[in-house]
Amino acid sequence: MSTDRAYSLSLALPDWAAALEDTPRRCAGDLDRMRFVIDLARRNVETGSGGPFGAAIFSRPDGRLLALGVNSVLRLKSSLLHAEMHAILRAQARLGRHGLRAPDVPEYELFASCEPCAMCLGGILWSGVRRLVCAAPSASARAIGFDEGPVDAASYDYLVGAGIEVVRSVLAEEATAVIQRYAALGGTIYNG
Amino acid sequence: MSTDRAYSLSLALPDWAAALEDTPRRCAGDLDRMRFVIDLARRNVETGSGGPFGAAIFSRPDGRLLALGVNSVLRLKSSLLHAEMHAILRAQARLGRHGLRAPDVPEYELFASCEPCAMCLGGILWSGVRRLVCAAPSASARAIGFDEGPVDAASYDYLVGAGIEVVRSVLAEEATAVIQRYAALGGTIYNG
Repeated sequence: MSTDRAYSLSLALPDWAAALEDTPRRCAGDLDRMRFVIDLARRNVETGSGGPFGAAIFSRPDGRLLALGVNSVLRLKSSLLHAEMHAILRAQARLGRHGLRAPDVPEYELFASCEPCAMCLGGILWSGVRRLVCAAPSASARAIGFDEGPVDAASYDYLVGAGIEVVRSVLAEEATAVIQRYAALGGTIYNG
Repeated sequence: MSTDRAYSLSLALPDWAAALEDTPRRCAGDLDRMRFVIDLARRNVETGSGGPFGAAIFSRPDGRLLALGVNSVLRLKSSLLHAEMHAILRAQARLGRHGLRAPDVPEYELFASCEPCAMCLGGILWSGVRRLVCAAPSASARAIGFDEGPVDAASYDYLVGAGIEVVRSVLAEEATAVIQRYAALGGTIYNG
């Protein structure tokens, strides 16, 4: 009866990022994990593979990298492929399950090089991660023309109420510098 | 160097929904468009293919169906595959572009059988649709245990401020009945 077009959304990483994800790694603490994520954002800008945002999901107890994401809106032609969504989708694909919170897996945490937009905050809420750690403030993204959507203190409170620990402003200046570098290079503001 | 796992996210529809999308159709006005979307939600429940939510994207001027989505969180193993996100991803895949707002395409509008959660409201903001029409209130989803995330009047105001027309409560009772039917059948509440 049906010819279902059977669309799929590619979640492919740029080659340089795939090589990073393919290398087993553990990042010991918050600073190491955030440095890794800011480096993703920086390479995404410098190689021209996307916007100035990176994210990664780590096993909380031992810092093992589960999956990473980089802003891929233009590269993969999807307005939903912000770095956080990219990392969540790759993590769920890797585990073959719709949520990252289950008795038989470790707790997972998401590191983001910039505070998430409204969509990503909601996506994080449903993802099953137990902790969110952010670097640059939303204001840094807004300052170069990106829209962040309806996000306020109550948005973060909601995550906390759902049992997700939230930590903000970890290495914020380094992450903001990457965002400013993108603007200086004339990077596309795809949803201003 | 890299073996990039090249994950992809299947956006496949259930067979019955693919058959509907494959049939060229125009829905004349808001009520016809919403009846189509509520029917998607109903079939998703009755066939057991997912949660009680449907969405579709139509060309605003002539009501031509561009793409549809049904809640696919459990079927396709992704917490991000709410009906609205599914429809947006399929629409962008069909057009091969990251946004639905461009000089060379008609204005598009998204119909949702229930008011969107926080993630989907953000996703709609970035999608490029010019109009959002909703049926059941969020309260109907919350009443059976679904979490909707941080959404309030200001969230909708933000969309309006971004140039997206918002219409709510179109055929709300019919859509609420589908949500209640899902609960009566013992449907899984995947992010309660």
